[in-house]
Amino acid sequence: MTATFDPDLFASRHIGPNAAEQRRMVETIGYGSVEELMDVAIPEVIRWHGTLDLPAAVTEAEALAELRALAARNTVATSMIGLGYHGTHTPGVILRNVLENPAWYTAYTPYQPEISQGRLEALLNFQTMVADLTGLTTANASMLDEATAVAEAMTLARRSSRSKSSVYVVDAETLPQSLNVILTRAEPLGIEVRVVDLTAEELPAEFFGLHLQYPGASGVIRDDAALIETAHARGALVTVAADLLALTLLRSPGEIGADIAAGTTQRFGVPMGFGGPHAGYLAVRSGLERSLPGRLVGVSKDADGAPAYRLALQTREQHIRREKATSNICTAQVLLAVMASMYAVYHGPAGLQSIARRVHLRASQLATALREIDGVEVVHEDFFDTLLVRVPAKAVDIALAAERSGINLRRVDADHLGIACDETTTVAHLEAVVAAFGGTGIPDGAAAAFPEALVRTSEYLTHPVFSSHHSETAMLRYLRRLSDMDYALDRGMIPLGSCTMKLNATAEMEAITWPEFSQLHPFAPAAQAAGYEQLIGQLEGWLAEVTGYDKVSVQPNAGSQGELAGLLAIRGYHLANGDARRTVCLIPSSAHGTNAASAVMAGMKVVVVASQDDGTVDLADLDRKIEQHRDSLAAIMVTYPSTHGVYETGIAALCAKVHEAGGQVYVDGANLNALVGFAKPGKFGADVSHLNLHKTFCIPHGGGGPGVGPVAVREHLAPYLPGDPLVPAAEGAVGAVSAANHGSAGILPIPWAYLRMMGPDGLVAATGAAVLAANYVAARLRNHYPVLYAGNKGLVAHECILDLRPLTKATGVTVDDVAKRLIDYGFHAPTMSFPVAGTLMVEPTESEDLAELDRFCDAMIAIREEIARVEAGEWPLADSPLSNAPHTAASVSADEWAHAYPRSVAAFPPGVDRAAKYWPPVRRIDGAFGDRNLVCSCPAPEAFED
Amino acid sequence: MTATFDPDLFASRHIGPNAAEQRRMVETIGYGSVEELMDVAIPEVIRWHGTLDLPAAVTEAEALAELRALAARNTVATSMIGLGYHGTHTPGVILRNVLENPAWYTAYTPYQPEISQGRLEALLNFQTMVADLTGLTTANASMLDEATAVAEAMTLARRSSRSKSSVYVVDAETLPQSLNVILTRAEPLGIEVRVVDLTAEELPAEFFGLHLQYPGASGVIRDDAALIETAHARGALVTVAADLLALTLLRSPGEIGADIAAGTTQRFGVPMGFGGPHAGYLAVRSGLERSLPGRLVGVSKDADGAPAYRLALQTREQHIRREKATSNICTAQVLLAVMASMYAVYHGPAGLQSIARRVHLRASQLATALREIDGVEVVHEDFFDTLLVRVPAKAVDIALAAERSGINLRRVDADHLGIACDETTTVAHLEAVVAAFGGTGIPDGAAAAFPEALVRTSEYLTHPVFSSHHSETAMLRYLRRLSDMDYALDRGMIPLGSCTMKLNATAEMEAITWPEFSQLHPFAPAAQAAGYEQLIGQLEGWLAEVTGYDKVSVQPNAGSQGELAGLLAIRGYHLANGDARRTVCLIPSSAHGTNAASAVMAGMKVVVVASQDDGTVDLADLDRKIEQHRDSLAAIMVTYPSTHGVYETGIAALCAKVHEAGGQVYVDGANLNALVGFAKPGKFGADVSHLNLHKTFCIPHGGGGPGVGPVAVREHLAPYLPGDPLVPAAEGAVGAVSAANHGSAGILPIPWAYLRMMGPDGLVAATGAAVLAANYVAARLRNHYPVLYAGNKGLVAHECILDLRPLTKATGVTVDDVAKRLIDYGFHAPTMSFPVAGTLMVEPTESEDLAELDRFCDAMIAIREEIARVEAGEWPLADSPLSNAPHTAASVSADEWAHAYPRSVAAFPPGVDRAAKYWPPVRRIDGAFGDRNLVCSCPAPEAFED
Repeated sequence: MTATFDPDLFASRHIGPNAAEQRRMVETIGYGSVEELMDVAIPEVIRWHGTLDLPAAVTEAEALAELRALAARNTVATSMIGLGYHGTHTPGVILRNVLENPAWYTAYTPYQPEISQGRLEALLNFQTMVADLTGLTTANASMLDEATAVAEAMTLARRSSRSKSSVYVVDAETLPQSLNVILTRAEPLGIEVRVVDLTAEELPAEFFGLHLQYPGASGVIRDDAALIETAHARGALVTVAADLLALTLLRSPGEIGADIAAGTTQRFGVPMGFGGPHAGYLAVRSGLERSLPGRLVGVSKDADGAPAYRLALQTREQHIRREKATSNICTAQVLLAVMASMYAVYHGPAGLQSIARRVHLRASQLATALREIDGVEVVHEDFFDTLLVRVPAKAVDIALAAERSGINLRRVDADHLGIACDETTTVAHLEAVVAAFGGTGIPDGAAAAFPEALVRTSEYLTHPVFSSHHSETAMLRYLRRLSDMDYALDRGMIPLGSCTMKLNATAEMEAITWPEFSQLHPFAPAAQAAGYEQLIGQLEGWLAEVTGYDKVSVQPNAGSQGELAGLLAIRGYHLANGDARRTVCLIPSSAHGTNAASAVMAGMKVVVVASQDDGTVDLADLDRKIEQHRDSLAAIMVTYPSTHGVYETGIAALCAKVHEAGGQVYVDGANLNALVGFAKPGKFGADVSHLNLHKTFCIPHGGGGPGVGPVAVREHLAPYLPGDPLVPAAEGAVGAVSAANHGSAGILPIPWAYLRMMGPDGLVAATGAAVLAANYVAARLRNHYPVLYAGNKGLVAHECILDLRPLTKATGVTVDDVAKRLIDYGFHAPTMSFPVAGTLMVEPTESEDLAELDRFCDAMIAIREEIARVEAGEWPLADSPLSNAPHTAASVSADEWAHAYPRSVAAFPPGVDRAAKYWPPVRRIDGAFGDRNLVCSCPAPEAFED
Repeated sequence: MTATFDPDLFASRHIGPNAAEQRRMVETIGYGSVEELMDVAIPEVIRWHGTLDLPAAVTEAEALAELRALAARNTVATSMIGLGYHGTHTPGVILRNVLENPAWYTAYTPYQPEISQGRLEALLNFQTMVADLTGLTTANASMLDEATAVAEAMTLARRSSRSKSSVYVVDAETLPQSLNVILTRAEPLGIEVRVVDLTAEELPAEFFGLHLQYPGASGVIRDDAALIETAHARGALVTVAADLLALTLLRSPGEIGADIAAGTTQRFGVPMGFGGPHAGYLAVRSGLERSLPGRLVGVSKDADGAPAYRLALQTREQHIRREKATSNICTAQVLLAVMASMYAVYHGPAGLQSIARRVHLRASQLATALREIDGVEVVHEDFFDTLLVRVPAKAVDIALAAERSGINLRRVDADHLGIACDETTTVAHLEAVVAAFGGTGIPDGAAAAFPEALVRTSEYLTHPVFSSHHSETAMLRYLRRLSDMDYALDRGMIPLGSCTMKLNATAEMEAITWPEFSQLHPFAPAAQAAGYEQLIGQLEGWLAEVTGYDKVSVQPNAGSQGELAGLLAIRGYHLANGDARRTVCLIPSSAHGTNAASAVMAGMKVVVVASQDDGTVDLADLDRKIEQHRDSLAAIMVTYPSTHGVYETGIAALCAKVHEAGGQVYVDGANLNALVGFAKPGKFGADVSHLNLHKTFCIPHGGGGPGVGPVAVREHLAPYLPGDPLVPAAEGAVGAVSAANHGSAGILPIPWAYLRMMGPDGLVAATGAAVLAANYVAARLRNHYPVLYAGNKGLVAHECILDLRPLTKATGVTVDDVAKRLIDYGFHAPTMSFPVAGTLMVEPTESEDLAELDRFCDAMIAIREEIARVEAGEWPLADSPLSNAPHTAASVSADEWAHAYPRSVAAFPPGVDRAAKYWPPVRRIDGAFGDRNLVCSCPAPEAFED
């Protein structure tokens, strides 16, 4: 044995292949070392030869100790600030078995529905919960936060409204951060936002949409039914931003006439996390479901006719509609939506209502007590959980007194305070609040304080799933059953091109559930968040160093928002320069569809640049397009390495050409895992990028979110980074793109820990190992499947495209067949048909060890041999293990077996673990059937009977 | 919907059936309410009608807040105390995916090996690790701690030695707590322990065993090969208590001639936890394996001839050998043994050696630095990690100075300090220590400081499992793969009679991994453990209140140790009264085998009392036995409710008879779940009980441990409770039974939280629900399987015995067949053939909801119908789904199917979840084959090839 293995070095745990394995891999490719391979693979024109100026790696224990010290600089106070963020008890069984369980947090987006039935069921529960509580027909799963959800509601209203007006009316009771994001989104689209005090002002004669907050930011509950009627009469659509907990007691938006409901599910058991991540929601009435942006889960059927879930209506989405898309949203907040839905499953309708009644009781008790105090006025008679209190000139002093008792109140202005109760509010908290106002004594009870007309009488959460898992034992088993249906990184490799499904280490995950990080309100006094500010400052600095930019903002809470923020920065820059005509955004044909959608949202016009046969940007076409649009050129958006998984050498020339024409260069950071430590977009010519912290920087995919998409810019764009959502944007500046200033701050300890534990050397080693792994897979599979694109000397970057089109043409076996057959072999499929239809894109990442890489290659080769048997006529195409894949346990143990191949081939192809095989719960799913017969809430249990 | 469900009430989460379900259940049994049922079921003669004097229930959040406050009263210092407890880094992937994962911690003892292959593999890894490192042939899995392990080694030596001497020689370098437990165990057995300073004294002429500590408690490393040779020449067996980490660098006990090695695996990633739980180990040379006490995992084969693991040589164990048993140990420390084995799997041989080298380097650096200081003498030249430092008259001052720097040293005496380094020791720690001695400066390097002759050259951990899972990704998947093979409470019901497999709630588990509870050394200064002392004091008080006793000690770290402690208390009491002749212990024939084994260990003579046909103690036979042994009667040991699951009415009379004859009454607390809140053993006549906190009080079974077995006594026995292991027992007092004063203190937050969150009302409700569930199962199954015993009006207590003997006689279908067939239905089997051969004992507990109880009853009824088909000749007995059970996925999808029943019957019997069925990894295991061909370490991977 050798003693060279250092068990303390985190990089040696993060990177799968050890030194000896890497030597074997590099030899297979035909090189002498990883260094030599990288020197050949990466074009010198982009190569950066420095050493990253990051702190040297520390051990896991040391990093956790540093995180504990940062955490200790935060102050966990009792938050009564409200404004859409509330204290909540995360049930332990959900905390530990969802948020802290790799079976849930390492799962990928459910594009392969056969191996995602567990989380799809959880998301269908989420949709059902939202639809029931809002009283609307169809809810998606899910939005990034309340502010982006209501902004999406605005654009949904615009495209669905009969009105030709560009006016959007916004309730003055709207949450300030929601208003800020609405304004950010409205401006480039030419929407005129008009904020109206609906208690004092009339509605305008023409407007396309009306946004109401229910209850209002001040806590007030109004009966808006008449307003809604007026709005409808004028052709406008109405969005109600509603608090779901309040809706257990109040008439639902659907019942009062709303077309759209939007909001957050944070207080359903998801920690505040200094702003996120939480699942926002969006629901619509019947007729609008096909206009709904974001992910939508629906019920369809599998090859045996059994009910099965999958993402519905994907043709609405940006990856299909590109510049015709109506939203750029792709990542959702799946992990948090699962938590919120499970909170509803665990509590059930009666439990939720009981919680809501207690919250309301606390607010009512508080109101009663405050009204006893001289000089204190409780402004509204009707409220659910939040009081607006008038204390002329005394608001600051009282707020400070409350803070000294460990309680944060909302400082509305010098004369007003806001106080929100939640399920964690105790009578002791109320006593402390009353004491801060100079009063004493809390009444035992208090009458309900909302209008009789708004008392809810309709039922909700009537599906049995919300009444079956109320004991912890039952809940635990339900969670296990669902996660057992799914395939995640804890079972095996997820070789998804462009998605970088690498290790999400426990040491990275640990801190996010510490109270000092999870329990902070995003609008808490700055002094209470000193640890967060330090952590975020360090992280932004490290990310700037890694990317070569000057300034980073972590506010965008998904890559799509980072793209928008980056394009808004470009827009702001051009406007400041008086270049209002610069609105053309060049986008290569191979780009992610999101790029085009984001450009449209930023008020730009998309012009497509052609790709050459080898997958690279057609520089001649680029020249033509620049010439055509020289005066109006705003930007080019490119991905580097390209979506073809190749280091293009033309990138420097491309940047120079665009700059020369006065445009800005946007480099999509999706593929940054191929660059870290070897090249810096900010140094090879780009002006702005967004990063995907859930790709390169280890935030887990969570089954389809959370994502975090910081935007990184060079100095000249820094003034146009997103603004603080609580501060109205100054003239010429850009507003907020997310509800909280630091976006999904609660999970930033993950990339912080990754960078801290890897250090400069570890990061370089990871990039090398990732590129090595992709080239190893390409080398092993090249003789079996053509590798579509390659760069210098036939090398790929961090991923490779396997071209199945010739095989499909020759045999009829499709990429779908191969992808589904891989399930039988115990794998998640690679990316299918992106960026080239009929291909599979494989990104192994640095975290897969040689044994797993070989297991994957062996499976692909074995599948190629199966295709050969179809080709040879041994198995009919329509009855081959490929076309029938995936095989369920039920199908391979059926009494009848009439297939052309034996059961053993179906069930246990070569290399499969006989003792612990993963079995998909359903056979191949018919997506189109579900789109034709749209069902987006939980089917009755009878549907599952044999 | 009703709003009566209180989501905050922990009891409503802990208890499975809700109020409506309980009403349905009670109606099925034919009663009007649970209260009425309990009034009939529980004999008035034992009934206690008070209200438990416990604090009222708090919510989960409140309990966690109280635990946080208790935790804050503990001080987490850097421990350099040593003495067998060391700081260690628990790899995050193991912490979260084993210790915090219900798939591991809620599993039961692997008596049903077909559904326990995952943890059996982990335990085989443990045995292989111990055997390799100690250089011996066979290790068990595992012991309770080092002190009990070395005490077991003593008795093993006695029964295997050629010598007739009763002298046991113990190295003066032995850990003080080990010596204390050795003395406790030796005294009742008539063993004369002679402590010898082996550097100064000769070995006696005759002795049966020699105990060596390697390295010694002072840290010294001696070459003991010559001593061992002398001992062997005199017919003695030699035990070496060895530090496993040191053995990565030092010659192994086997290589220096030891017969037995014993010790702890704590420093392999298991937190100190203020004393436990940790896995002790015991290994023996070839020839002694059949004398090894405790659980032993071995390799055998399944019905298809595939390798399969199961517990080996069970006929050695106390449940078989009863009063002929040589040890009472049953529960092991499985969960902790799994952690320690996974630490070795994750680090591998090179990683462990690297850690050991670093630990040794730190000790050497420290020695070099200390030797530079005037007046400081490092006593030994040869050491691994621990230094004995002589500082005349200054030891206390220096220790206090170190404590002010946050470091605890071992205070040996006024002139000496002990300082132990471990894998968490940094140069900064060394600097602080040196500063406390008045010195400064740590050298960069230092030469190794152990004798050349003892440098290890032999290999270890050469099995591939120790070299295959070094990346976190690979480790995570290995842990998941193993846990996926197993069935635990997170999948479904484990209806084990007498084992009370109830919910282990997350809120109960959370605190045990907080550093303030997990990182304390058991011998830390008392002021640093104020939170622990308070928690333990409260818990002991609450347990006394629940049981009706006057005093409780939580020191016994398993039920077996609690039994021994209870009997030693009785022994001490009789001795103090001059009643040395009182040595007879009456034990009913239906008792747990452990009772008899414990009595023998306590120096008592077992006399069996007959049972009547109805399962109750034969009071007439009791009279006879009392009469026969009146003058020598020490005690009676009974279980209440009896092991037949019945509330016997004769218990009060039994107690009176024994007391009248001068005996003491020991009530085994195994079945306390049927009594809590309704009857108190300490009030209905018993003098002493042990409790099983892993049964009634929610410590999870962990796959076969940890257990915690407090002993509870009435006032007159209180002086004879176990003593502090660091304090030699006073004349007439009883010594320690565990290595640490509070036993497995680290997991006591679990029962504390249970009691705190249930409160008096919740506990009463739980007992009612448990008895209700057992009677419901009995009522539903009675017409299909006779219920063997019953009490008043046909009611059982908390469990029921289903008598399969008539069916077996009629059809040949055995309890084994039914138990294994239940696996196909998705259940863990009930207890088989205890207390009556040919029966199944079912204890549903209060945590199973009605749906799960019904699923179980339905499965049992469906199996009865299958038996009927065998009976009817439709299926041959030898080829029925019963005899072939369990069916693996591989077996039901085999290309050939020649069975008398269809595949669908094998694979998906009625009620089985088609989408997420649990598949056992192996078919029925041939235990006898493995016992004939004993293999107790990891088989070569080739063994698993098809």
